[in-house]
Amino acid sequence: MTERIREFLRTRREDGPCVVIDLDVVKENYHAFSRALPDTRVFYAVKANPAPEVLALLAKLGSCFDCASVVEIELALSAGATADRISFGNTIKKERDVVRAMELGVRLFAVDCTAEVEKVARSADKVGVKDARIFCRILCDGAGADWPLSRKFGCVPEMAADVLEHGHRLGLTAYGISFHVGSQQANINAWDSALASASAVFQECATRGLSLSMVNLGGGFPARYLRPIPGVPAYGDAIFQALSKHFGNRLPETIIEPGRGMVGDAGLIEAEVVLISKKAADDQVSWVYLDIGKFNGLAETMDEAIRYPIRTARDGDATVPCVLAGPTCDSVDVMYEKTPYMLPFSLEIGDRVLIEGTGAYTTTYSAVAFNGFPPLKQYVI
Amino acid sequence: MTERIREFLRTRREDGPCVVIDLDVVKENYHAFSRALPDTRVFYAVKANPAPEVLALLAKLGSCFDCASVVEIELALSAGATADRISFGNTIKKERDVVRAMELGVRLFAVDCTAEVEKVARSADKVGVKDARIFCRILCDGAGADWPLSRKFGCVPEMAADVLEHGHRLGLTAYGISFHVGSQQANINAWDSALASASAVFQECATRGLSLSMVNLGGGFPARYLRPIPGVPAYGDAIFQALSKHFGNRLPETIIEPGRGMVGDAGLIEAEVVLISKKAADDQVSWVYLDIGKFNGLAETMDEAIRYPIRTARDGDATVPCVLAGPTCDSVDVMYEKTPYMLPFSLEIGDRVLIEGTGAYTTTYSAVAFNGFPPLKQYVI
Repeated sequence: MTERIREFLRTRREDGPCVVIDLDVVKENYHAFSRALPDTRVFYAVKANPAPEVLALLAKLGSCFDCASVVEIELALSAGATADRISFGNTIKKERDVVRAMELGVRLFAVDCTAEVEKVARSADKVGVKDARIFCRILCDGAGADWPLSRKFGCVPEMAADVLEHGHRLGLTAYGISFHVGSQQANINAWDSALASASAVFQECATRGLSLSMVNLGGGFPARYLRPIPGVPAYGDAIFQALSKHFGNRLPETIIEPGRGMVGDAGLIEAEVVLISKKAADDQVSWVYLDIGKFNGLAETMDEAIRYPIRTARDGDATVPCVLAGPTCDSVDVMYEKTPYMLPFSLEIGDRVLIEGTGAYTTTYSAVAFNGFPPLKQYVI
Repeated sequence: MTERIREFLRTRREDGPCVVIDLDVVKENYHAFSRALPDTRVFYAVKANPAPEVLALLAKLGSCFDCASVVEIELALSAGATADRISFGNTIKKERDVVRAMELGVRLFAVDCTAEVEKVARSADKVGVKDARIFCRILCDGAGADWPLSRKFGCVPEMAADVLEHGHRLGLTAYGISFHVGSQQANINAWDSALASASAVFQECATRGLSLSMVNLGGGFPARYLRPIPGVPAYGDAIFQALSKHFGNRLPETIIEPGRGMVGDAGLIEAEVVLISKKAADDQVSWVYLDIGKFNGLAETMDEAIRYPIRTARDGDATVPCVLAGPTCDSVDVMYEKTPYMLPFSLEIGDRVLIEGTGAYTTTYSAVAFNGFPPLKQYVI
């Protein structure tokens, strides 16, 4: 909660929940990443929050952009980024979208299998691009992350050299390796084993005459939620040490893709208590229903993965365990039930609550109109 | 897959996934419910699919509407429903929304606690409404449902008489009881124990001098997905028998709230295979990535709850186990992994796939723009 957000909310008159993003915090976060990893280029993960104001600020600061789709590439370009600062980081792309990205000037593409390599190669032929670069994503176990990644992206490290060599034969530049240690990763050493795998792929490629240049360290940098997390400098130190350990004095070019770590704690949601009730006269737990839930902003409470800090004007009063739920007629629209949330006993219907750390993965996840409720409104200040 | 949908898709030229709704199927489903439960009024659950064409058809056929919000009430009114055919069925309402609903003429409100009753009573006083009716939702275990309901809605049956009596004292009409046996309920006898509870509340209210009139049997009526389900007539018979068993010859007025059962099998999604890959050279399971996933239409694959039938032009060829995933850079965007899906070995990137039974809970659940992908496009024919 920043003073600027507090001031903004004091004068807000509209009804319904909203998220407010403080650009000053985004700026601080960008500088923190730059300082912690001075030789690493920052590719902001646009999907975390594609607000034009956020993208324009980051473009001005010199950030690069990790884009998941042609729409995100167009957003980054509109915000002032040049195409050489854009990575098409989705390993799952329609071939016509690869063509479109190349037409827009993008040259850097994520792949994790030969079929995707072939799409990039055919697209390069079609558009007449000679300098397309690919990096191969490898699987990584994601232990220690609050929002761990499945096996959806990446191949086993043993397959990566084949994938990259295939691209090389088809005229692409085999540029490097990427991985992702899992979103909201609290373990600063999570990069170590992934870098060991990346180094092994570099060596295997070298024996095949391919000289890789780059390691994409992915995202995973956490936002501040309820659980304490290390600061960005601690991540920077641990990553630099792991890089030195596995690559010696032949350090590769590196990039990072922070999304949550860049905008998560820049955002604050203001919501309203719609109902407080009990299911039976002798229930120990109260149900607190807000006007925001899983379908209009808080999707990341899925499986209670992300526990946001919640503030009320009655903090300091005695607390009671509450199940926290959203406003829709959908029974899965319950945020915290397995581990109830402690909230003031004095909380009343109509009270405002502030949900912190909600700058990432809130607006874009919102449903268009589930139950007739509008998507989360966003103000960028 | 109807002939009309087949014909429509043959001439469609736009890119990207879409759902096509055949109004003829909606009409058949409405008539099936009317025939199976001739003395029961149908309140279509608007949240399942609020397409104006669907609402207009149902309004014309004589359906009533179960609305979750003021926006849904306005949609139903715009479609031609009169306010006396609308229920504000959400137990979680802002008081100003209750006021607004009353101003629009709505008189029937769901409640499950005294705090909600008081909102309705204060709103009635404010708007000058003398004939507001409340029904109290009771908890029900939901066993046998593919999308079982949590304890989010309803109170224990023992509390319902207090809730209704509180409303009566505040000038509201204590109108009845509602429950929900769980969505996609395959057990036709699921209504029996809930009706036993409802009957007990009727008796308890009678001893307090309150004569309840109505039992809202909720939804739960399934759509045809992969698993075989009983037909609507079987549900009608079982419900009628359970009503007779628990209410004897003093049958209450009844209403049902089908959503999925009304529009689920009226819809078909056409999607495209974006990528087919393996994570390791010796993997037995292929990953098949579509241009639709959890965030742009298939949210109900959450926890692999709903298994949609999928058709391809290569059906009949030998099949292999596939993990089915969506197109976004989000690792939770995987539809079927725990129980892989059998798809033709000959399936290729660029192939169209048809996903059946997708008329309910697809368009409205879509995210506004996650990863830059647009919400699911809908055609109503």
